Amino acid sequence: MSEVLSSTVASIQPIDAEAVAAAEAAQAGLAKPAGALGVLESLSAQLAGIARTCPPAVPAKPAVGVFAGDHGVLAQGVTPWPSDITFVMCNVFQQGGAAINVLARAAGASVTVVDMGVAGPFAEGPGAEGGAELVSKKVRPGTADLAKGPALTRDEAIQALEAGIEVANTLIDGGADLLITGDMGIGNTTPSAALIAALTGTAADVVTGRGTGIDDEMLAHKTSIVADAVARISADADGVEVLAEVGGLEHAGIAGFVLGAAARGIPVILDGVIAGSAALVAQKIAPASVGYCIAGHRSFEPGHRIALEQLGLRPLLELDLRLGEGTGAALSVPIVQAAARILTEMATLASVMAGGQ
Amino acid sequence: MSEVLSSTVASIQPIDAEAVAAAEAAQAGLAKPAGALGVLESLSAQLAGIARTCPPAVPAKPAVGVFAGDHGVLAQGVTPWPSDITFVMCNVFQQGGAAINVLARAAGASVTVVDMGVAGPFAEGPGAEGGAELVSKKVRPGTADLAKGPALTRDEAIQALEAGIEVANTLIDGGADLLITGDMGIGNTTPSAALIAALTGTAADVVTGRGTGIDDEMLAHKTSIVADAVARISADADGVEVLAEVGGLEHAGIAGFVLGAAARGIPVILDGVIAGSAALVAQKIAPASVGYCIAGHRSFEPGHRIALEQLGLRPLLELDLRLGEGTGAALSVPIVQAAARILTEMATLASVMAGGQ
Repeated sequence: MSEVLSSTVASIQPIDAEAVAAAEAAQAGLAKPAGALGVLESLSAQLAGIARTCPPAVPAKPAVGVFAGDHGVLAQGVTPWPSDITFVMCNVFQQGGAAINVLARAAGASVTVVDMGVAGPFAEGPGAEGGAELVSKKVRPGTADLAKGPALTRDEAIQALEAGIEVANTLIDGGADLLITGDMGIGNTTPSAALIAALTGTAADVVTGRGTGIDDEMLAHKTSIVADAVARISADADGVEVLAEVGGLEHAGIAGFVLGAAARGIPVILDGVIAGSAALVAQKIAPASVGYCIAGHRSFEPGHRIALEQLGLRPLLELDLRLGEGTGAALSVPIVQAAARILTEMATLASVMAGGQ
Repeated sequence: MSEVLSSTVASIQPIDAEAVAAAEAAQAGLAKPAGALGVLESLSAQLAGIARTCPPAVPAKPAVGVFAGDHGVLAQGVTPWPSDITFVMCNVFQQGGAAINVLARAAGASVTVVDMGVAGPFAEGPGAEGGAELVSKKVRPGTADLAKGPALTRDEAIQALEAGIEVANTLIDGGADLLITGDMGIGNTTPSAALIAALTGTAADVVTGRGTGIDDEMLAHKTSIVADAVARISADADGVEVLAEVGGLEHAGIAGFVLGAAARGIPVILDGVIAGSAALVAQKIAPASVGYCIAGHRSFEPGHRIALEQLGLRPLLELDLRLGEGTGAALSVPIVQAAARILTEMATLASVMAGGQ
């Protein structure tokens, strides 16, 4: 590992158990039956643990990082969409007309699109009003074809992880107190399935899905590519090696983003299956990083369920979204904020029984 | 039926199929794969159908109606909580320290607490800053014991339904464009279970749950009370008769609230099992009213699943909430708003492919 990655990993602490316990005790004393707010209660305790204090501040400045990249495996015919859609959509993000722009505006979140490895044209620059800023961290113009060999060299994987860490640091330095993962990359459910298969020990046909819509024949082909690629990975491979062998550049960026958030003690909401597979990489590199992760939603992709189980995360939303971009995570922001607000603003049972507030 | 109820029911139209179809067509033309936004897409189509135009306006003024009442069946020992909690919590609502106050503020929603039949003291009046307005529509101080006979007379049930309609009309006249149901009433999962059993033809032991926390013995007792009460209802009973026999005053208020929203063409987000059982009453009285209903969440109570199945509603959230007050519905407001925003603000595929926005 290089210096940025190793020092980031070294600075990730487990979330604070005392603050978690304080939040649980506080929840039990609020003006409601214990446990009646379900997941909001456990989420508030996690936020307290991340903030290392109770009550935690209500997140006020959420920021979406959309990591974009292209995939050499497209040569194998794993999706009906052309890779040009990746850079075209980056332009739509910049203009503000994509689903993630709409949902981020609704959540009061900024959007930063990071070119990790877009094959087509991508120019850095600010967004139109309500649109996303474009930032270049391009490692290479798309991965190599994972059906034929490693998608990335180990150095490229580390460079991409560190780019994700840098993006997290830049957003946090700019005041962001809640990070949200997003992705854009035609073909990226194939490396996601491979990462999940490799990092959870699950069979390729269980974790490989239809992405944004493929037929039975293409699915069978995609599944066999995933199975063959995963078979190349040795049992003692570390997280970086798995990532380099079968991952994508946006997966690396998101894994770094998660590590960066965890190192800085900031919660990070994971979007769908791409984020779930990237979080497995972060978990493999630094297990404590998962404590900072919140699963914004569960996507329609079958591998996502497997990834969330291994991460030990329960999704906040299950609305059959399968778009990516960070849409499911952005949609869950108000729930995360509400969990923190409950701890801060609710009256206690004791004050109610005393007739006051 | 009296005049207000019958004219309200008569003015409820099915939601507009043309606007639904227009929204579905619009979704298919947005800059994303068709169907990739899952439930957000079908929800946007429902909102278009309710608004009878596409795109529908984004709801900007949500309003929670918390209907409160007490229950004669408490004499049977169906909950460990005393009925005094009902009026105590109404005071907490007024002061602004309850969970619904916190979640309504987060959603930008007002809260109005309606005394439908609180047994303890309840004084009308404005709320403290961030608190709820208290309004009296008291029909009687708590229902009769449904274990011994009808909970309400038919006239009382109609009066309570009409009170709910009036509250909906008052809020809509005040500018509310999205109604949210809430409830407060110690013991009210018992009449909810009875309404669900009676209106779906489901066995009492399937629909009766632990409410805010009771032991096995109390659950068995509660279940037998529900079974015996439901057995009194004839197969050809109308919605008002079922409501009068085993319902609660807050259930009647919520059922009226739903009918009122539907008659005015305004969407209404249902909270948990109390709202679900009340919506079944509204459905029985005016089947088309369900088209205006959105299930904000699915509660932990087993009967809620049965009610939602019969209503044909898929819940937006499943977070194990079991508090009531409208908390789950309020938490779902940003999702409803997001669904409408997608239709209004997203770029079309055609514009993206043409290189513009």
